[in-house]
Amino acid sequence: MAARNQTAAVIGAGDFIGAAIAKKLAAEGFTIFVGRRNGDKLAPLVKEIEVGGGRVFGRSLDARKEEEVVSFLSDADKQAPLEVCVFNIGANVNFPLLETTERVFRKVWEMACYSGFLAGREAARLMLQHGRGSIFFTGATASLRGGVGYAAFASAKFGLRAVAQAAARELWPENIHVAHLIIDSGVDTEWVRERIKEREGQAALDNLDPNRLMPPMAVAEAYWQLYQQPRSAWVFEQEIRPFGEKW
Amino acid sequence: MAARNQTAAVIGAGDFIGAAIAKKLAAEGFTIFVGRRNGDKLAPLVKEIEVGGGRVFGRSLDARKEEEVVSFLSDADKQAPLEVCVFNIGANVNFPLLETTERVFRKVWEMACYSGFLAGREAARLMLQHGRGSIFFTGATASLRGGVGYAAFASAKFGLRAVAQAAARELWPENIHVAHLIIDSGVDTEWVRERIKEREGQAALDNLDPNRLMPPMAVAEAYWQLYQQPRSAWVFEQEIRPFGEKW
Amino acid sequence: MAARNQTAAVIGAGDFIGAAIAKKLAAEGFTIFVGRRNGDKLAPLVKEIEVGGGRVFGRSLDARKEEEVVSFLSDADKQAPLEVCVFNIGANVNFPLLETTERVFRKVWEMACYSGFLAGREAARLMLQHGRGSIFFTGATASLRGGVGYAAFASAKFGLRAVAQAAARELWPENIHVAHLIIDSGVDTEWVRERIKEREGQAALDNLDPNRLMPPMAVAEAYWQLYQQPRSAWVFEQEIRPFGEKW
Amino acid sequence: MAARNQTAAVIGAGDFIGAAIAKKLAAEGFTIFVGRRNGDKLAPLVKEIEVGGGRVFGRSLDARKEEEVVSFLSDADKQAPLEVCVFNIGANVNFPLLETTERVFRKVWEMACYSGFLAGREAARLMLQHGRGSIFFTGATASLRGGVGYAAFASAKFGLRAVAQAAARELWPENIHVAHLIIDSGVDTEWVRERIKEREGQAALDNLDPNRLMPPMAVAEAYWQLYQQPRSAWVFEQEIRPFGEKW
Repeated sequence: MAARNQTAAVIGAGDFIGAAIAKKLAAEGFTIFVGRRNGDKLAPLVKEIEVGGGRVFGRSLDARKEEEVVSFLSDADKQAPLEVCVFNIGANVNFPLLETTERVFRKVWEMACYSGFLAGREAARLMLQHGRGSIFFTGATASLRGGVGYAAFASAKFGLRAVAQAAARELWPENIHVAHLIIDSGVDTEWVRERIKEREGQAALDNLDPNRLMPPMAVAEAYWQLYQQPRSAWVFEQEIRPFGEKW
Repeated sequence: MAARNQTAAVIGAGDFIGAAIAKKLAAEGFTIFVGRRNGDKLAPLVKEIEVGGGRVFGRSLDARKEEEVVSFLSDADKQAPLEVCVFNIGANVNFPLLETTERVFRKVWEMACYSGFLAGREAARLMLQHGRGSIFFTGATASLRGGVGYAAFASAKFGLRAVAQAAARELWPENIHVAHLIIDSGVDTEWVRERIKEREGQAALDNLDPNRLMPPMAVAEAYWQLYQQPRSAWVFEQEIRPFGEKW
Repeated sequence: MAARNQTAAVIGAGDFIGAAIAKKLAAEGFTIFVGRRNGDKLAPLVKEIEVGGGRVFGRSLDARKEEEVVSFLSDADKQAPLEVCVFNIGANVNFPLLETTERVFRKVWEMACYSGFLAGREAARLMLQHGRGSIFFTGATASLRGGVGYAAFASAKFGLRAVAQAAARELWPENIHVAHLIIDSGVDTEWVRERIKEREGQAALDNLDPNRLMPPMAVAEAYWQLYQQPRSAWVFEQEIRPFGEKW
Repeated sequence: MAARNQTAAVIGAGDFIGAAIAKKLAAEGFTIFVGRRNGDKLAPLVKEIEVGGGRVFGRSLDARKEEEVVSFLSDADKQAPLEVCVFNIGANVNFPLLETTERVFRKVWEMACYSGFLAGREAARLMLQHGRGSIFFTGATASLRGGVGYAAFASAKFGLRAVAQAAARELWPENIHVAHLIIDSGVDTEWVRERIKEREGQAALDNLDPNRLMPPMAVAEAYWQLYQQPRSAWVFEQEIRPFGEKW
């Protein structure tokens, strides 16, 4: 691994996906800035990356606060030019429309859409000075489909996708690759496994088809493919799903 | 015109479109509730409807306030069962991503998405008691496309569309028709005419092709078609545009 | 019913949908031209329309033959100016990819796509002389989704949709309304009832939820709505489905 | 370059894109089968690959003939298990609807859709025996949009996309990666340069922005990314375009 004089920021490294992205980018030589609420929970990830020879900074970050996003990304850019910014905050909740409180609706939007706008805008501001960069947003099935019980979550994810589209149309000509990666599948995380256990029982979990859930590292690899694309053939959006998934 | 013992609520009657919808529904016999900020500006519309023999209530309404939406719609429902609710608030702004302040981004969302969620949820709550109703949302080109300068507006309109989709999937089986009408065209309003004058000059406005802009009443007619559909063949979404529009 | 000096052609009146469209348009005063293979099977439909006071011509028509389409439509236009042309031929088959013979693939395309192209082109040729008209194409779920076993059928329906789009973009400015109606549901026909019986048994058919299948007349009403739209607010495409349908 | 005991077939290697794909796959160690009408025109490509140390077979192939497709692919599979099949035949023509002859409509479909069905089906048949493989289809802007003058071409490309979708849904669970690559851009080929010269003049061509056209090798690299995806996170469809393209 050759170190690069470039920084990659991962906003929303609280789950397995963000951690996998951080590890992949560290392994490719980037200095990593990872942010999440309760930054102390980042300690194991930071340690794992450092043991592997990577360079990483873990920070507490409430990405719904403009000033925190500004300082997180500008600090990252001071270490080395900000080259990659991945916005990876989800807020997957399911409530019937009538039980969706205004508080839930607003909070899910602030986490999954509004903070993505702030991250994209601020990353763009820094990257425009360097004349290059990649800004990636993590989407979900709910980015394209407002299903039963998903008024709040889908609304936020649809909104984030629009931000990504507008940003891409404005920033691509400036040599900044904006892309939107839609994960149309369950991902193999503790949270997803817990839900399977709740719904289907311990036996279902014990006998889980290894191909049913997407490994977090596969998401990281998908981002790495996007990063490597030549600017003569950029992709804005792609949907990934396991080979056995129904769609 | 036979009066109906049913109420239709139009939220966002500040522009020509909302007024046209209100007039059409009044002409079809509904008792009308129209709400907008600065409700005193509704006086000419209220008068016009009343002169035509319609029954109408104009109200000041800040649709971003949950308690105001609740009382507006429940007051409507007290007059006669709430049968139709049209959410028609836009917030069409265009700013480059880097000049989109967090305040603009949030405010556009509150006006064009969040208040639509509140209106849809509260209308549903009332209509479920009657076992029927129609909830319609006004969309725009930006509901499907995040164009240059539209990070804020498209994000809100995408988000509103997701609310409409989730609501439709939940409420159709309860005999409530939720639909999303996309206006893919300029509409003939003072505001649009002003913009044409600014951009293209007075001469362009004077010689305006009468087929270039969509008359507000055509939007009202489109809603009226949606209302008349039998539940055996409902439409969730349709895009309307003038015959000469490029798309 | 006031008779109109206008003709409506329905190509593919072999099923219940085409018959319902023909009856609706006859009831609205159009002279009707209906075509299908084995035109003698049109006798009951022709009789029913005539008994109702309508004016109708039933013809044998192989819509895959250019010269037959040309003469069918020009004969219609000679009765009275061709005002409406509905292309309604389906060819719903389901075969696994490996069992889809080249003959099936080609035949389905000829029936459901190629003949639609011929009909649209020839209707346009006649309508351009009158400076007005409506050309409508019947689509299906498979117009938007290539599902398991639908390589042949979806390929033809996707292809027909492209023809409709290109025709709409070329002909709308000429005052010809081209539209594509997607039926995202089973329709209540003998053929569909037979399939339910085969798959689910006689009891399932006897206890069929009356809201499960779309009545053919609802499709006809949807076309009638499209026909009535003012050109200032035309719709190109709409999907209809019953209120209880999952989507 | 380590030789692989695997064959890659490229159907439609008549243009620069197919040649670039063949060269890329040869460089990755596959034995290459390239087919096009007038197979003798493949001589320079075959020579170039051989000089580079690759193993390649050039064949005359009319992909609209079932028996030719069958023997082309089974011959390829006899050299070494067929691992990759790229269907790359286009037929980009533009005619107003009324000037689109039935012969053109049919021929474009046979070239761009029907032969793709044959190729996909036959590749699947062989790959199912090996329990693995990749089948890739080249799409275009017209795969998603039926523009003015594109009734024939878009109809064929829409139809090919449906074949790809149905094939993907059937074959992914069998460990065969079916994908559809949409090139939403001009590609830097002699034919495209000729058209620019015709429309915009020699000076436009001489001063061509090097970023305006997509280099054929960028398409090949996009296919190579698709090939490398782990089956836990496959992509069905992606659109590639240069960073400066309007969309």
